[in-house]
Amino acid sequence: MWTHQHLTGICHLSREDILFILSRAMYWRELLEHSPKSSDILSGYSMVCLFFEPSTRTRTSFEMAGKLLGMNVINFSLEGSSLEKGESFRDTVRTITRMKADVLVVRHRASGIPEYLATFLPCHIVNAGDGLREHPTQALLDLLAMQRTFGSIENLQVAIIGDVLHSRVARSLVLALKKLGNKVIVSGPPTLVPKDVEALGAVRIFPVEKAAEGADVVYLLRIQRERQEAGYFPSLREYAQFFGFKENLLRQLQKPAVVMHPGPVNRGVEIEYSLVERDVSLIEEQVTCGVAVRMAVLEILLREGKVR
Amino acid sequence: MWTHQHLTGICHLSREDILFILSRAMYWRELLEHSPKSSDILSGYSMVCLFFEPSTRTRTSFEMAGKLLGMNVINFSLEGSSLEKGESFRDTVRTITRMKADVLVVRHRASGIPEYLATFLPCHIVNAGDGLREHPTQALLDLLAMQRTFGSIENLQVAIIGDVLHSRVARSLVLALKKLGNKVIVSGPPTLVPKDVEALGAVRIFPVEKAAEGADVVYLLRIQRERQEAGYFPSLREYAQFFGFKENLLRQLQKPAVVMHPGPVNRGVEIEYSLVERDVSLIEEQVTCGVAVRMAVLEILLREGKVR
Amino acid sequence: MWTHQHLTGICHLSREDILFILSRAMYWRELLEHSPKSSDILSGYSMVCLFFEPSTRTRTSFEMAGKLLGMNVINFSLEGSSLEKGESFRDTVRTITRMKADVLVVRHRASGIPEYLATFLPCHIVNAGDGLREHPTQALLDLLAMQRTFGSIENLQVAIIGDVLHSRVARSLVLALKKLGNKVIVSGPPTLVPKDVEALGAVRIFPVEKAAEGADVVYLLRIQRERQEAGYFPSLREYAQFFGFKENLLRQLQKPAVVMHPGPVNRGVEIEYSLVERDVSLIEEQVTCGVAVRMAVLEILLREGKVR
Repeated sequence: MWTHQHLTGICHLSREDILFILSRAMYWRELLEHSPKSSDILSGYSMVCLFFEPSTRTRTSFEMAGKLLGMNVINFSLEGSSLEKGESFRDTVRTITRMKADVLVVRHRASGIPEYLATFLPCHIVNAGDGLREHPTQALLDLLAMQRTFGSIENLQVAIIGDVLHSRVARSLVLALKKLGNKVIVSGPPTLVPKDVEALGAVRIFPVEKAAEGADVVYLLRIQRERQEAGYFPSLREYAQFFGFKENLLRQLQKPAVVMHPGPVNRGVEIEYSLVERDVSLIEEQVTCGVAVRMAVLEILLREGKVR
Repeated sequence: MWTHQHLTGICHLSREDILFILSRAMYWRELLEHSPKSSDILSGYSMVCLFFEPSTRTRTSFEMAGKLLGMNVINFSLEGSSLEKGESFRDTVRTITRMKADVLVVRHRASGIPEYLATFLPCHIVNAGDGLREHPTQALLDLLAMQRTFGSIENLQVAIIGDVLHSRVARSLVLALKKLGNKVIVSGPPTLVPKDVEALGAVRIFPVEKAAEGADVVYLLRIQRERQEAGYFPSLREYAQFFGFKENLLRQLQKPAVVMHPGPVNRGVEIEYSLVERDVSLIEEQVTCGVAVRMAVLEILLREGKVR
Repeated sequence: MWTHQHLTGICHLSREDILFILSRAMYWRELLEHSPKSSDILSGYSMVCLFFEPSTRTRTSFEMAGKLLGMNVINFSLEGSSLEKGESFRDTVRTITRMKADVLVVRHRASGIPEYLATFLPCHIVNAGDGLREHPTQALLDLLAMQRTFGSIENLQVAIIGDVLHSRVARSLVLALKKLGNKVIVSGPPTLVPKDVEALGAVRIFPVEKAAEGADVVYLLRIQRERQEAGYFPSLREYAQFFGFKENLLRQLQKPAVVMHPGPVNRGVEIEYSLVERDVSLIEEQVTCGVAVRMAVLEILLREGKVR
């Protein structure tokens, strides 16, 4: 039984909650193969997208998901908004909610913002990424792509490689994978793979080659250029050389593995240029799963989640 | 009987017109309490929002209203538009209209633009704020919030406090309140409360404390930071001290009053920080009434208003 | 029989293809005279607008067309997008497509981009203008406006005047007019009317007065201010003097002609100020025809065009 009003983090979900979302997402994923693919099960509900960090990819995915279910979708743009006119953040979101939005999809650079909003807003909050904390729909779409590939998400071995330190994607994914009983290994430049990820149940293994050995899934994280200036690694070129994942390396593994990446990809940095479009890459499948998972989340929150 | 093609100002409406809009708005206001809340009575009609001044609040409210009625809503963005490529304003709006928009919602810094457009465009014009002149849907939503609070809008005493001089909100509100037979008092820094507002039927009373005495509604106007530089008052701090409305002051009134504000609010300037979220504050109710009133205006114009 | 998956250029269309689009566009053009004018024949299909060059006019026209047919329309904005985060162009469009867009409407400054996308994307591509190459829906809407005026588009004489060199509009229009068996004359400043347009079947005639003689349609191209700095003509004032089209000139023609312009118009430069709103001007009719033609193109691609 679904008991949540919001989706603010994987940390609040039980194993059953995750499997429930995935089962509905699987249904929507199949629907996406067909055109026309309309549904109006959420017609008459309104979703407002409130992105305080730039993101057209995630925002567009939510927008597509909402519209495919018949929702009214409104993108609240921040330029020229009341926030710029001196209104407080609290008042801005209260105002939007009082326009009778049913769902607020929020991305913010500060960790914890969705939890904060959930304490006082009378609508459903969906976290589309908060600071260094969580990005739950990303983890769920990753699970969906794995489930479609392997049939189930139990007893998989997943190696997450790259900038674990700054990655809310990694954090949500580790939490989700562990709840479903999988083995998770993290690797990358040691400066970017903190010890405390072990508290979540992941195992640190260096170097990358060794971490990938035996994995069913090699999950590469995006490297942001700013990290170079901050001194976490000497240069993008060296990062590509020592930590970027190559076709060659993939072939040397004992066991065939698939490759995943949350996007946007820096081809030639964290992943070899050609690998992106190989059959072993689930990168494009992840994008489609993203729409399906968001459809499932919207459906479940609006149909099963009570608003206080 | 409704006879207007456009809604360009309260000045053109009769008492009966206003009550007609409010009666329909009341219906939509109740609908907004429920979810899902779809209607498709305006399906097949298109609304284009053309905002030459930044405003996400009012634009989002119109967008929500239109979508809840089943309309196609298009936000015409000005960056990269033909206007920037040297097209005349007249040609830009003619072009948009010839894409067969049924309603044009326009905000512009120049007073009188909606009236000008109404002289030659073959569609419905709704004024979303023009210069220092009018903001009719704001006044109507304020009336709706009062009606829901007091049961009717006759014989109310309303004290409007703040920058009356630069406020199209104040102008439309005074016009509307007087048409329905209410007593309107204006107050604030004398530099910002011009004598000519008396021609509209309002009474000037200073200081603020005296103006609020006996009021059913204390309506606070937003202070724009630019006014300080222009020398209308010494500083925001002094404004807050002498003209900002405080809980304390509210408690000292003989008669209990509600507080209203068109938003966005500068907490701690024109209104005491904590007062915004008190029970006596109608500020959030005003936001919801805004969507309801805009639904009513769109419905009435498209169903009752003939296009020449 | 329609056999195209994409609309990337007039160059790929047969005479029959063009007439088929026009016959459907004629149907939609009539529908646009009425309100409400909804159709849901494309409900459940999604269109993504991807404009790499600024254009609100063409984008809004496509958005209106899609929404009037019941489509989900998503504007992919480039600011803050993955492209800015280092993602390759190829990956960005692949990602959007994998969100299960059915139609991608693309404008790009590079000639050939829509053809390139058509080689690998599993959806319909509509070219909304690529570099100096083609702008097929503009040519089709021009034909529709001519057809409504003259009853048919055969044996017309069309004089295209202005910056032919940089005009994808001119290129597509010449191709389309020749396929339907019309006489096409090009004129303007000789620096801007290249010889190679003769390879498309157009005849170069100078000066402008002589080129317009005998024309049924005088089609004026937009002059971009940048061309002055590039030295193609001495100044906008001289351009207006020698190549701008005047009412006077129109009256001196032996035969009455109509005036067309793709917009946005520089009144007083390529066309005399007052001429824009005369009865002989089809400029506004072109705008409405634009929506109708885009409706027809979307309808035909989604209903008749197979996706590989």
